[in-house]
Formats: sequence, structure tokens, C-alpha cells
Amino acid sequence: MSRVYNFSAGPAVLPEEVLEQAREEMSDWHGSGMSVMEMSHRGKEFMSIAEQAEADLRELMAIPASYKVLFLQGGASQQFAMVPMNLLRGKTGADYVNTGAWSKKAISEAKRYGAVNVAATSESSKFTTAPKQAELALRADAAYVHYTPNETIGGVEFPYVPDTGDVPLVADMSSTILSRPVDVSRYGLIYAGAQKNIGPAGLTVVIVREDLVTEDVVAGTPTMLRYATHAAEGSMYNTPPTYGWYLAGLVFQWLKRQGGLAGMAEINRRKAEKLYAAIDASPFYRNPVDPACRSWMNVPFTLANPELDATFLAEAKKAGLVTLKGHRSVGGMRASIYNAMPEAGVQALVDFMADFEKRNG
Amino acid sequence: MSRVYNFSAGPAVLPEEVLEQAREEMSDWHGSGMSVMEMSHRGKEFMSIAEQAEADLRELMAIPASYKVLFLQGGASQQFAMVPMNLLRGKTGADYVNTGAWSKKAISEAKRYGAVNVAATSESSKFTTAPKQAELALRADAAYVHYTPNETIGGVEFPYVPDTGDVPLVADMSSTILSRPVDVSRYGLIYAGAQKNIGPAGLTVVIVREDLVTEDVVAGTPTMLRYATHAAEGSMYNTPPTYGWYLAGLVFQWLKRQGGLAGMAEINRRKAEKLYAAIDASPFYRNPVDPACRSWMNVPFTLANPELDATFLAEAKKAGLVTLKGHRSVGGMRASIYNAMPEAGVQALVDFMADFEKRNG
Repeated sequence: MSRVYNFSAGPAVLPEEVLEQAREEMSDWHGSGMSVMEMSHRGKEFMSIAEQAEADLRELMAIPASYKVLFLQGGASQQFAMVPMNLLRGKTGADYVNTGAWSKKAISEAKRYGAVNVAATSESSKFTTAPKQAELALRADAAYVHYTPNETIGGVEFPYVPDTGDVPLVADMSSTILSRPVDVSRYGLIYAGAQKNIGPAGLTVVIVREDLVTEDVVAGTPTMLRYATHAAEGSMYNTPPTYGWYLAGLVFQWLKRQGGLAGMAEINRRKAEKLYAAIDASPFYRNPVDPACRSWMNVPFTLANPELDATFLAEAKKAGLVTLKGHRSVGGMRASIYNAMPEAGVQALVDFMADFEKRNG
Repeated sequence: MSRVYNFSAGPAVLPEEVLEQAREEMSDWHGSGMSVMEMSHRGKEFMSIAEQAEADLRELMAIPASYKVLFLQGGASQQFAMVPMNLLRGKTGADYVNTGAWSKKAISEAKRYGAVNVAATSESSKFTTAPKQAELALRADAAYVHYTPNETIGGVEFPYVPDTGDVPLVADMSSTILSRPVDVSRYGLIYAGAQKNIGPAGLTVVIVREDLVTEDVVAGTPTMLRYATHAAEGSMYNTPPTYGWYLAGLVFQWLKRQGGLAGMAEINRRKAEKLYAAIDASPFYRNPVDPACRSWMNVPFTLANPELDATFLAEAKKAGLVTLKGHRSVGGMRASIYNAMPEAGVQALVDFMADFEKRNG
């Protein structure tokens, strides 16, 4: 067996220790004689797994007791509907900040349910920066403010948490959650598809302030799309994605062994600085993003000569560096360096880039 | 490692061969250097897994080319909303057959979106039988007819497929899909949560006739809850539950090695007959269901003396027979004997029951 360094934007690399533990426990979890996949979600074995995972996530993110943590399905795409359906609460509209592809999808879906005020957009920069606080045209009567702290495709990350006063702040943290400490109390609701920094695809984590979990939903909201349904039942109104929940729990324990989110932030900072330094060191490579807003997680870069793209990807693959092709809307390369990408993987990429430039520059 | 016989109603036992293969491939699928969990859903490795799984399911169930097969999230509970949202198509209502707990949930959710006509109910029998064809008060102008071929809690299974003329028949097959051959062409739409006979929780399979996949949905239907969204994108509009899809594929290949659904039906018939025979052989045990409608998959039974329930469960567990406690609404015991429960597991249960009766009868 030879593991590669996988720079996929999601589903993405998982910690090797986590995969190894999952492998060992596959057919018999802790002497139960069962795989976690085979357990009744209401049995005491799985309940203990579920509760431990929630407790560890609460500890890692220092989630206040006044917030519910939900383990759901449907990914960020389903949250794009659930957020307005549940949080408009009779108000006419919400404020959205547009910083790229994922913001746009959230905005498009929200328009089905209420008036969307685009409070700011970085479109004029081709989404290579994030609007500053002073540029946010926020409305005091908005039901909430939605933003995307990290745009997975553009590789743009907010360097600050927007101040929205008394209006609840909602964040699609899919590609940045758990990468560093956050002050959860600044948010009304945080959601994240698991398949980048949490665990396997098919699990969605929602962290929501209790007062925002109400029955005052848009008419016609399905039972399964109400936060109240899941909050009332500990995310077990119906059968949850049990195996994903278990793996998320293993990732949370791995994060604690890395020194929690403060420890992870240091590692992530070093990884990102190393890769951006390699890109900036030569005109052979280029990252278009405002240096103040460069993502720690998703690093798009282009070659000065795009005719070399295919060769770069083929040779990188031979060197065990895979899934580096950039999103079709951006072109070039994208290296996603989530929590589970080891520093050695970034070093291997940087070394390969230098060598490739030497041979082709 | 000592595996138990797990009679859980879902999530439920998986074939040991499948778990073993998943274990072997956990960190490195087919020399890719990655776990299936880590693969981009749009990469060629995962695409090949996804396509093979769909092809195998189509072969197993002989699904006509005019049907779409979707790999979704949200379980049957989300389908309870998606079915009316997508299939009412401007009609005022639909017909539902009520045979127990899961039918009732489907009915309750459908009422949010249209008029529900309960075409028949077996409530007067305490849901111990299924209505006969002649008892179905079907309306020619119904948008569709919904029924639950197998009620997981009551252990009641339809011995026939309702004839609904030109009105599309919709079936919640969560607990009976793949247990025997079905004529898919009799149905407009079949859905099933994976966690009983398909794979791990968090995956939902929908088989839908193409002409029922339309944009004519109830106003306010989220993008993610439209069949058309997923049908147009090969279930990859957003990130699908990739690991569950992969495991479902391993289960489909295992089913082919058992002789497909015809082979599986013979095995399931033997398992069910053996267990019902053991129950019927003595007044010590009792199954309340109309013999013509007894489920092959979920076998509830009670002890003549319910004071022995706790002892029965404790001793069964010591004998490696677990998750036998009946649903709280029915009491007693429930043995779910899905495809992956080996005949040896049913034999072990029957032997234990005989021994327990000898010692306590």
C-alpha cells in the first residue's frame, strides 16, 4: 500500500490515523460484535458514539450551551434552503454577502423564500477579495446576514468576522470549520458539509443558537427541513448518517490530539505560508487572491504557461500528488490543504513545484 | 473478534464479506492510494464505483431503461415530502393506503401539500393485515397511490402489488427492497432508505419513471428536494454520500453472488418459514399477523408471559443474539432478518427460543 497526497477540494483527505482506526473497528466495534454501520441508532453503543462526538465538537469549538449541535444530511446545498425557510421568521428578507460561487448558490436558493439584499459583492475583483466591514450595506431589519467565510473555488477567506449588530450572522463554514478557533457566540448559525474538514460526505453539521430554532417557518417547509424537528430529537428524528457521525467523532478526537483548534491553526498557518511563499517566489506560478484574503484551506494557482498544465498534473500524479486540477471556472491548479493534509504533503508539493519550474521554466 | 447475530430493524446487519472488503480497501482503494471516502465524487475512480453500483442495481432489479435511479440523502422521511412535492403535478390530491406506523408518517407529511384520500386502512385489525385489492377505494383522478409494501414495525407485508390502473403507484420499499424480485414496471416510483437491505444509513435510493420527473413541483420546493435536480446530474448536483454509495455497490455485488434476487428470495423464504414455524409451534410464542401478510423481513413476536421479556433478551444477548427488543408500540420481541442475516443466525435464534421455552415454559 502506498498512500498519495490528495489535494481534493472535497470529499478530501482524512487523517491516516482515523482511517486506520476505522479499519480496525470495521467488523467489531469495541467488542460489540458489530460494525458501527450495523448498530441501531437508538442503541446504547451508538448513542455513546454520538454523544461523545458532540461533546468533543463542543469542546473543540467552545460551543456555548445555548447552541444546539445538529448532525444532519443534505450538505450545504440543502442548508441553502433550510436557512431561509427557518430563519426568515416572518421578516421579508435577508442580507447576503456575495464572494463567489458558493455565495451565489446560497443567494439563488434564498430568493425562493424571501427578498435577498446583496449587502456587498466582490464580483468586480473577479472574486479575488472579500468586502471590508465598512463595505457591507447591512439592514437593521434583515432576518439574518449570510456569508461564506471561505470560498472553496476562489480560495478567498474573510480575514475578519462581520459585525452584524443584533442581526444573526449565518456562515457556510464547509471549507474552513475546525481549521482554527472561532468565537461561536458571534454567529446565529454555522453550517458545514462534512466532506472537507469533518469526515465523509453525507453528514452536515449545524450549530444554531437556540432562540433561532422555532416553529415559525416558511409555509410548506417539510418536517425534515425544520431545525426544530432535529433539535427536539437530538438529531434522531429519523435515522441519522451513523457511520459518518462516528467518523466525525474519530476526527474530533484526532484534532484534540493535535492540540485542538489552536494547535491546528498553527499547523495550518505554516502549511499555507509555505505554499503561498513558493507561489510568490517565482513568476512561473501565480495566485490571484488579495494577500489579506488568501484561504488557508484552498489554494488556487496558475502556471505562467497554461500549455504546461497537463504535464504538470501528469508529473505531479506520478510523484504521488493527486487531485490538483483547478475548478473549471478558475482553471490552472488548486491545492486544498485541509486539516488532514500533513505538512509533509505540502512540502512534497512545494518541492515538486520547484523541480517542475527548474525543468520547464 | 466474535461477531454477533444482530436482529436490528435498521441500521442493520451487513454481509460479513462486504465489511471485510471495505476493511481491506479502507486506506487504499484498488491501488489509488486513497480511501473511497477521500475521493472527489467527480474523479474517474469514484465515477466508476458509482456507475458500477447503478448498473448492478439495474441488473438485479431488472429496472427498465425508462426509469431513473437516484442516490440521494434524507431517508424515507425526506421522501415523505419529496413524493407529494414532485408528484402532485397540479392535481389536488393523492391516495394513500394506511397499514401502520410508516404509512401514517407518509400520510401526515403529504397532507402539508395536498388532499390525502386514505384509500384503505387496516387500523381496525390493529395493523395486523394488509387491505385486499377489492378494499382499495382508489380515485381515478389521484395524482398517485402511495403504499408501504412492508411495515417494519408491525411486520406486515403486502402479498400482492396493488393494481392502480393508470395512476402511478409509489412504494416505500425501505424494509423489503432487494429481498425478492419485483416488477419495477408496475411502479411509478420506488424509494428506500439504505439502512436495511442496501447499505449504511445516510443513503436513499429512488427509482422513478422518467415521465414523473418534471419541473411541475409544488411552489417553494427546494432545489435539493426536486427529483429533476438529481436526475439531470446523475445524483451529483451536490456531493453525494459517496461512501454509502460505494458500500451499496459492494452489497449489490454480494447479492449477485447469492444468485440475485431470485436466489435471495429462496433464502429469505426459508429463513422466514423457519422462524414463523418456531413461533407457531408453541403457545409460548405468538406472532399476531395475518399469515397471508407476514413479513419476510421483520418478525415481531411476544412471549405468553411478558414478565419473561427481560430474561429472554438478556439470555439471548449472552448467546450472541442481539437487538431483539420489539418496538415500544408493539412490545415483545422483533427479529429483523434482512438479506444479510445468515440462515445460521435464524437457526441460532430458533434453537435459543426452543431452549428458552424448555427452561421457562
